[in-house]
This record gives sequence, structure tokens and C-alpha cells, in this order.
Amino acid sequence: MITTIIGLGLIGGSLGMDLKERGFTQRVIGVDKNPKHIEDALELGLVDEAMELKEAVEVADLVILAIPVNYIIKLLPTVLDCIKESAVVTDMGSTKEGMVKAVENHPNRRQYVASHPMAGTEYSGPKAAIRGMFDGKVAILCNANDSSSEAKHTVGFMYSRLKMKVIEMDAADHDIHAAYVSHVSHISSFILANTVLEKEKSKADIFNMAGGGFASTVRLAKSSPEMWSQIFEQNADNIMEVINTYVKNLLLWRWHIEQGEFDELAKMMESANAIRKILD
Amino acid sequence: MITTIIGLGLIGGSLGMDLKERGFTQRVIGVDKNPKHIEDALELGLVDEAMELKEAVEVADLVILAIPVNYIIKLLPTVLDCIKESAVVTDMGSTKEGMVKAVENHPNRRQYVASHPMAGTEYSGPKAAIRGMFDGKVAILCNANDSSSEAKHTVGFMYSRLKMKVIEMDAADHDIHAAYVSHVSHISSFILANTVLEKEKSKADIFNMAGGGFASTVRLAKSSPEMWSQIFEQNADNIMEVINTYVKNLLLWRWHIEQGEFDELAKMMESANAIRKILD
Repeated sequence: MITTIIGLGLIGGSLGMDLKERGFTQRVIGVDKNPKHIEDALELGLVDEAMELKEAVEVADLVILAIPVNYIIKLLPTVLDCIKESAVVTDMGSTKEGMVKAVENHPNRRQYVASHPMAGTEYSGPKAAIRGMFDGKVAILCNANDSSSEAKHTVGFMYSRLKMKVIEMDAADHDIHAAYVSHVSHISSFILANTVLEKEKSKADIFNMAGGGFASTVRLAKSSPEMWSQIFEQNADNIMEVINTYVKNLLLWRWHIEQGEFDELAKMMESANAIRKILD
Repeated sequence: MITTIIGLGLIGGSLGMDLKERGFTQRVIGVDKNPKHIEDALELGLVDEAMELKEAVEVADLVILAIPVNYIIKLLPTVLDCIKESAVVTDMGSTKEGMVKAVENHPNRRQYVASHPMAGTEYSGPKAAIRGMFDGKVAILCNANDSSSEAKHTVGFMYSRLKMKVIEMDAADHDIHAAYVSHVSHISSFILANTVLEKEKSKADIFNMAGGGFASTVRLAKSSPEMWSQIFEQNADNIMEVINTYVKNLLLWRWHIEQGEFDELAKMMESANAIRKILD
């Protein structure tokens, strides 16, 4: 099997390494518009060779799109136009409705499986690639009934080699859940960083005081603006709703402090503590 | 040297273990109003023995208050009333202005050193105690000129045994910096948990989608409501200011999404990315 990975960043690079080393594929072809990414990916052994997009898609048995979501939506129909009759296409995007809508009437729709591996770090680029990054995490297949059973089988087998637990979900539901859990975490981190950097002029003070929980809470604020602004664009409606709830809770919190209602504040924290049951 | 630790939670318990094992003190006496904490602390070897408050303070060479901040402020004058002439008192509170104000005119003020070790986890109680938890972290001494050089020396030596880097700061400045870095991180986590729990009715969905950064961003929401509501009470003015900045940034973020200004959103993220330089 020949696997073509479009986008040799954290996700694409980590995929190339694991899929090759675990015997899922005989050959990994990498595509990236950034020559430095190609150079790094080849040097790190994340891919076997680099090719131009069209050629790489035409020879592939499996094409994986691992680029920011707007680019996936734009490129996906073209990729489906060019693939072999027996080939399968999947994508790694953090939103899913835009992709399934972009190809809903495409003649090769059934060769495509919309998917989202819930794994990653706040770093980007091929040098951020990590061996075993997907192990034990969850991968979501969306609107899987619109894919052929062969395509589903190929993508499911790929995720099993990545040691991921596969679940199926409606694309619209996926985007709602992703907004509520993953995307809002990033907003919370970005806003925290904006706020602290605006208020704290001295880097030494931040560094000294960051001992407690600051580093873990703000970690996601290191994430790629290009990648994340596209996710927020694609999932704008759901994100607006979750931001509104976040703002409401934050203003309630501020109100309790302003009014000296610290027992009420403690009650909000007790409700928040319920997250223990889910995470521990 | 006899060390009395008042409050056998995460901080007090971790202190007892390290100070004893590293030869800082010959004997650790524990005080806690919760009999279960005393039982656990004795069983885990965090303290050598338990005593009633008054007796434990009277025999101590060093008294460490490791209880929620409102209780420290209430108890500190009484502790200073009862100590031996040569004894030293310090506290582990996450705010500092309330403590120094509470004893500014106390005849034994110079025997007290206001301090704050920037270390901890989101868990509480003696069973959460961790060996070496303070290693490599920063401890802050506040208004150290109001303490005798002997008292400062004792507390500084204690922190050196805990392998902490000691810095000095004005108590008012401490509380401002703590609000901007440590306290707002907790607010951000608590609000995130409140929001996600309100929006996501299904625990399975949260669990499945939490793969990315959710767990680390929401981690602090497991923290103790009793401890944290008291910190927010003590540092209310500074926290109000930082919440106002946070709200402003969040509303600006929402505005950009609403207006479809995703380039502006990317610019806010690029500013937030500057946190990399501080943390990495």
C-alpha cells in the first residue's frame, strides 16, 4: 500500500512515522507547500519521499489530508477528482461539517471517510512529530454511512494500527462536541495568555509566579494561529454559543466577587469539581 | 528543632515529610481540626505526633500555618501570642496582604515571616502529599524587612532544604502578581469546567473528546472550593481588575468571530503565542 500524506506538520509527520514503522503501509509519500517542511520530514524519516500534489494523489492507495481545515475543504474535491478507483481518502481536520458538505454530491464521495483523531500537542511542524502520539486516544469517524465499507475498513484499520479507539458520530454533532470540549479549551488558554501578557509587563514575574497551575492552563496558547483561526471560522456558530455560556459564567463569577458572595463562588467551584468524575 | 505544622493537607503534609527526611527538623508536630487528617498524616508518616493547637504552638521552634487564607489571618495573632521567645512563625498562604496587616502592630511581629511557596497540585488533604513537591520551585518572602534576621534566616534555611529558590517581594505586589498569574488561571479553569459541564450533558462525550488539551486546561477546576473561595475573598480587588481584562479580551474575541474577522482573531493568537518565550 502507498500512503500519501498532504501536510507534514505535527499530525502528518507523526502519522507517517507510525504508519510506516507499524507496517500499515509500504511507502509514505509526503506533500507540503513548504520546502523546509519537506526537507525536515525527509531528514527525520517521517516520509519516504516527497512529490508534487497531483502525482502523489494519483499513485496513492490512501490519501490523508493533514492541513488546516479551510485548506482541507478547498482541496478535498480536487483530491477526490484525481484518485485511483480503488483509493481511499481521509482527513484529520478538527471540524467535520464543512468537509462532508463540500463533497456531498461528489461522484467519489464514498471513497472518502471524514475523520478526526483526538490527539496532538500545542506544537506544530514536522519537528514536533511524536512517535506513538495517537496511542490510546479516540478517533472519530463522521457520517460513516456515506462512505463505502471498503473505505471505512481501510481508515478503521489505519486507526487500529495507531492504537486508537474508533467511534462514529454525526458530523454536526461532532462539531458541537468539539466546540464544547476541545475548541473552548483553546479559547480559554488564548484569552488567559492575552490577559496575563497585557497585565504583567515583567516576564520575570510571570516566570517566578507560574509555579502552580499557570503553565498547564496556558499551554494551549502556544498553538498555531493559522490552524486555529480556521477551526474557529469553520465552527463559528457552535463556538459563539459556547462563548456566550462562558461569558455568562464569568460575569456571574465577577458578580459574586463584587457582592462579596464568596459562599456562592464556592458553590460554583463545587459544581466545577464534578469534572473530577470525568477526568480521574 | 521542633516544627509544628498547622493544617495537614497537601501543603502541610508535603512539608512535614520533606523537612523531616531532609534533616531540617528533629520532630514534626501536626495540628488539624479534622481527626481523619490527623489519622492519615500519622499513618503516612507525614508528622511524628499530633497535638492540640495551643500546646503544639507553645513547644515549637518553628510554627508553619498551612490552612486556608482566612483561617491564617484569624489564627496568626493568637499564634504569635503563644510562641516561645526564640520561635519563628511562617505561613504558606496564597495571598499575603491580609496576613501582614493582621499582625502589623503585634509585639512579636518580627518573629513572623510572611511567605508563599509557589507549588502545589489540584488535589487536597494529607493523602495528596507528595515527596519533593517543592523542589526547584520559587518561594516568595513578603515584607521581609519587618521580620528579624533570625526569623528570615530560619525560614530561608527551611526553603533551601525544600530546594526552593527564594525571592523577596512587597506583600501588595505579591498579591497583584498572584492575581494575574496564579489566581486567574484557576478562574479560567473553573469557568471552563462550569461551561463544559453545563453544555455537555453526556459524560461519555466529554471523556471521548477530551483527548487534546481539555484535561490540562481544566485540571485546576478540581481544586478545593474552601481554599480558593478564601483566596478570592482576600485578593478580591486585584482579581476584579484581572477579570475585567479577561472579560474585555473574551468579548473582543467574540466580536471578531461574530464579524467574521478571522485575521484579527489570528492576530490575538499571535500575541498570545508570546507566552512561549516565557514558558519554554
